[in-house]
Amino acid sequence: MTDPALGKWLHDLVADLLPPMRSITGDGVRATLRTVARALGETDGAPGSELTVHEVPSGTPVLDWTVPREWNVASARLVGPDGKTVVDAATNPLHLLGYSTPMRARVSLAELRPHLFSMPDRPDWVPYRTSYYNENWGFCLTDRQLSTLPDGKYEVEIDTTFTEGSLTYGEIVLPGETDDEFLITTHTCHPAMANDNCSGIAAATLLARDLAAVPRRHTFRLLFIPGTIGSITWLARNRESVGRIRHGLVLTGLGDGSDPTYKRSRRGDAAVDRAAAVALAQSDRPYRIVDFSPYGYDERQFCSPGFDLPVGRFGRGQHGEYPQYHTSADDLDFVTPGSLADSYTLLRRIIAICEQDRTWRNTAPYGEPQLGRRGLYRAIGATMNRQAVEMALLWVLNLADGTRSLLDIAERSGLPFDTIAEAAQALAGVELLAEVPGEAFGKIEVGGV
Amino acid sequence: MTDPALGKWLHDLVADLLPPMRSITGDGVRATLRTVARALGETDGAPGSELTVHEVPSGTPVLDWTVPREWNVASARLVGPDGKTVVDAATNPLHLLGYSTPMRARVSLAELRPHLFSMPDRPDWVPYRTSYYNENWGFCLTDRQLSTLPDGKYEVEIDTTFTEGSLTYGEIVLPGETDDEFLITTHTCHPAMANDNCSGIAAATLLARDLAAVPRRHTFRLLFIPGTIGSITWLARNRESVGRIRHGLVLTGLGDGSDPTYKRSRRGDAAVDRAAAVALAQSDRPYRIVDFSPYGYDERQFCSPGFDLPVGRFGRGQHGEYPQYHTSADDLDFVTPGSLADSYTLLRRIIAICEQDRTWRNTAPYGEPQLGRRGLYRAIGATMNRQAVEMALLWVLNLADGTRSLLDIAERSGLPFDTIAEAAQALAGVELLAEVPGEAFGKIEVGGV
Amino acid sequence: MTDPALGKWLHDLVADLLPPMRSITGDGVRATLRTVARALGETDGAPGSELTVHEVPSGTPVLDWTVPREWNVASARLVGPDGKTVVDAATNPLHLLGYSTPMRARVSLAELRPHLFSMPDRPDWVPYRTSYYNENWGFCLTDRQLSTLPDGKYEVEIDTTFTEGSLTYGEIVLPGETDDEFLITTHTCHPAMANDNCSGIAAATLLARDLAAVPRRHTFRLLFIPGTIGSITWLARNRESVGRIRHGLVLTGLGDGSDPTYKRSRRGDAAVDRAAAVALAQSDRPYRIVDFSPYGYDERQFCSPGFDLPVGRFGRGQHGEYPQYHTSADDLDFVTPGSLADSYTLLRRIIAICEQDRTWRNTAPYGEPQLGRRGLYRAIGATMNRQAVEMALLWVLNLADGTRSLLDIAERSGLPFDTIAEAAQALAGVELLAEVPGEAFGKIEVGGV
Repeated sequence: MTDPALGKWLHDLVADLLPPMRSITGDGVRATLRTVARALGETDGAPGSELTVHEVPSGTPVLDWTVPREWNVASARLVGPDGKTVVDAATNPLHLLGYSTPMRARVSLAELRPHLFSMPDRPDWVPYRTSYYNENWGFCLTDRQLSTLPDGKYEVEIDTTFTEGSLTYGEIVLPGETDDEFLITTHTCHPAMANDNCSGIAAATLLARDLAAVPRRHTFRLLFIPGTIGSITWLARNRESVGRIRHGLVLTGLGDGSDPTYKRSRRGDAAVDRAAAVALAQSDRPYRIVDFSPYGYDERQFCSPGFDLPVGRFGRGQHGEYPQYHTSADDLDFVTPGSLADSYTLLRRIIAICEQDRTWRNTAPYGEPQLGRRGLYRAIGATMNRQAVEMALLWVLNLADGTRSLLDIAERSGLPFDTIAEAAQALAGVELLAEVPGEAFGKIEVGGV
Repeated sequence: MTDPALGKWLHDLVADLLPPMRSITGDGVRATLRTVARALGETDGAPGSELTVHEVPSGTPVLDWTVPREWNVASARLVGPDGKTVVDAATNPLHLLGYSTPMRARVSLAELRPHLFSMPDRPDWVPYRTSYYNENWGFCLTDRQLSTLPDGKYEVEIDTTFTEGSLTYGEIVLPGETDDEFLITTHTCHPAMANDNCSGIAAATLLARDLAAVPRRHTFRLLFIPGTIGSITWLARNRESVGRIRHGLVLTGLGDGSDPTYKRSRRGDAAVDRAAAVALAQSDRPYRIVDFSPYGYDERQFCSPGFDLPVGRFGRGQHGEYPQYHTSADDLDFVTPGSLADSYTLLRRIIAICEQDRTWRNTAPYGEPQLGRRGLYRAIGATMNRQAVEMALLWVLNLADGTRSLLDIAERSGLPFDTIAEAAQALAGVELLAEVPGEAFGKIEVGGV
Repeated sequence: MTDPALGKWLHDLVADLLPPMRSITGDGVRATLRTVARALGETDGAPGSELTVHEVPSGTPVLDWTVPREWNVASARLVGPDGKTVVDAATNPLHLLGYSTPMRARVSLAELRPHLFSMPDRPDWVPYRTSYYNENWGFCLTDRQLSTLPDGKYEVEIDTTFTEGSLTYGEIVLPGETDDEFLITTHTCHPAMANDNCSGIAAATLLARDLAAVPRRHTFRLLFIPGTIGSITWLARNRESVGRIRHGLVLTGLGDGSDPTYKRSRRGDAAVDRAAAVALAQSDRPYRIVDFSPYGYDERQFCSPGFDLPVGRFGRGQHGEYPQYHTSADDLDFVTPGSLADSYTLLRRIIAICEQDRTWRNTAPYGEPQLGRRGLYRAIGATMNRQAVEMALLWVLNLADGTRSLLDIAERSGLPFDTIAEAAQALAGVELLAEVPGEAFGKIEVGGV
């Protein structure tokens, strides 16, 4: 796809993903996964791109947590003294406090007040609020509307249910040449907000489509999961096999106007951290790389010390940084096709580097091998800058001693990763390089305490 | 004590400590230790705060040195041609060259000159001079006085004695929960100078008082010893047990107007070095941290390569940096109650960090534990900034993997050490943390060559 | 020698070295080695300073290469339509394309053109071109001359021969106290250019003279070899013994006006890298230290990953940096006696540091030893700055724990290397230091893949 087409495809999918009443459990998540499946099905349906939907029963112990009761919303409306609807979740899911208990009551404005949430400093925006683990009910509305509410009796009509249902998440596995996994994960629990996180769901969906259509060295595993409890649930159910994860990315907030931002894994120097640094540095644009901190999105769980997985986070604006964060202003205007396409392109670049990175050993390490008689210059000189290619050949030969990956060599030489990778390919083609098995990304041990 | 009371207490003690004719041996040291004991006795006399006075016989071999003969001064006076006293050590101990040999002679001014020491560039100050290991006699006086001395015959009346006596030092041991020791040491050999080092003796005395009155994790050992030969003597007598020293501080020059200054141990990254760095950085004021060098005070001995103890130095102005250094101008005006109180407060802070630092292990390291149901926010949220506390909880959980101490976590997170320590305490209270035995300060090996 | 005498000696030798028709094989190399031998013989002829000339037969396999056929030039001339000589290699060896095939032909200007090489942007200079591994013939000339060539028939008269001869190189071994080697190598294949590399040959020759006349700790091995194929040949023939090389320097381009420049070995922190850094830093002048890269001169071979020898490169202007590089403008005016003398002096300094560096162990590491009674101050205080000497004594005693070399101590203390080395010598003289065998330069392992 061209960049404009890419941006439009992603933006259209964000629009499709917006409507459902999403939360950490319930039919909104299921509707969301159906939208993802539909978007996948529009492609050529490459084997392996099917979305598996998992349902984990309420009450299941998951690590230190328990899968909560399933929450669903039949309707939720606040009616004023004049009988007119003040707010209705059918208009905008944000109007209902997330995980609100059911409530039927006729209350005075004074009684109602503690259950109404607005943003005095942003009078035209509806805030996003939840109360997952403290029982409560309430409505969110603009401060402008709140300030005009007349005294009188209000009808609270919240028809929600808590049932012994399940927590729902989606998973796509795209097998690769090896069992080493690249994990892509995105949260599916935020309702009605475009950047956080319909943009992440859309990008992961397109990745699944695109990666299904190409040869893969890694096995790619894509997760569409509710935030926190979803990653905890997935980790609890896959505790024995997370050791296969060699790289991982949490996707969130990919459509706003901020600079691309990579947050390092807890390890800080995992291959994905370094691949992201190289991809961003060579993208020739402003960007940010931020250190790991234990606050944020699901990297908190993947990077908890018991797992300590090499999982970073990629996106643009970070939680809490932009005023539209967790409000109704995080809408379809806030995310742009241009930013979505740009983020996606960088994401592919990071993944491509991880796919190409490996550790080679120079098979003729004593002195420089005679490149001329092997026709190496001709072989690749035509397609790339000749001087950079020759330097890349020399750097790869010099540093490929079985202890350094192509990423190491790109970093040390200052040459573009692709030039280094092509040089390595050319040298491997004349058997001047041999791959070092199991050293593709350096030694990664999964932590344990 | 309030800061002003603290400053006054210390300054008063400095004044009490000034008078004796002190040197590396002799009755001046004993008088000094009696003053220290009196200052300790004025408190509640907590058990363990008693000062033990050690006498080590002259001639005792101590490491590469020998305890020198004991030096005492009955009187020392220079009388001019007119029969009037030129200088008298009874007026100011600095007038007598330290370790001066006895001398009774009638000499011309020309013969006298090589035995008179003044400071031409500071004509009103008396310099401090010693001749410990070369036999010599002499007087120190102001250059103004020296320049007005008339020709004629002078009476030299130096009644000093060298005897097979002993070297005297004081020691206080305050037992703690563990045998791990925190060493505080200060030199007691400098006569008549307030900053160098009555300020150090006073601060160590108050530390002994204050630490005796509180629970202690470490065993605190406080030394009041003559410089160089004193620390060498103590090290020679305690060679087998110095391995218990986990942290140490040499105290000197705590009362002048310079910025607080910490000199790192030879190791450079000992816990005390890092604790001092954190304490000073979080004191929100100008300060200096200087690297170890083998010149200075008794850190030279504690940090000699055979011992290589984790001993830094804390004070303000350093030797040779300020013009008053080693002169009569290092007097009671030069040290201020404010600087003394400020130094003492920082000293307590460094010690407090070492007392609190330890290494924990997250007992629920897989994913984040559910803090809400454990009531953790409420438990400590009331007393501190809520957001910092929540971040501190997350940082401690994330990094407490049994390999990082609280100091590590404070450094990595950028949060105040106290916030981190309180978060750890709260998490330990709900058994989310378990202490890692023997890892409190990382692994410290005492060097040996 | 005084600096001016030194500069003149080197510049005169550069002038003697210029004329021969040099290439990677052939009589030009032999003539060059005779000039070197003559320059050595002018000295006192110390044993060991004799140059051994090696002849390696064409066709010998050397690592990944093969020794090429020997090339010699009887004459090479281009005659114009008017019968006059256009260019003649007898006038300037650069006029003939290096390794040109023999050719007798009468050709039109159009046919001739692809075989003529000039520099359009430097119309008065003759470029240096070779065609070692692709058979070709040609002439190099100024662009000004090229542009005036009339149409017509030209006589090409190239009388060169390729024979099953040999590759020639010279080697000097100056035995030292130990078998540990210091390798000095310089390339002998470039014709008619003063800086690149008659300056390197001249400096290596003088080094051989000077080092032969002094006691040596290291065994010095000096190589006069053709670039690339020469070092590959030498490495192939000495593969088993290169492990003795503890330090090495490639010498090239020492006479131009650029700042002294050191290029680090592949290791980056070899003793020679650090010695060069200290020597240059303490030379109190502008200089450059550049990281290793696999492009340049024979360091490419010595630092190939299979050998990974601690070999850096020392010179001034680097290949390709200055416009005169590889042209007829690299002449006797381009190199100056001043730059030659300056480079040589720095070179001696780097070597002297490596010669003096060693690892000592303080024999009295517990506390400071009593220096006064050992008369240490007097012993050396007279010849050097007293305060620096005393600090050097303390630094050496403090850091000489058997793990740090004198270079380490100089770096850590910031004191001049010589001061540290003298302090160590003085301390060793009173048995306060003992040498740590085999730890002279830290542990160096020769790589292998």
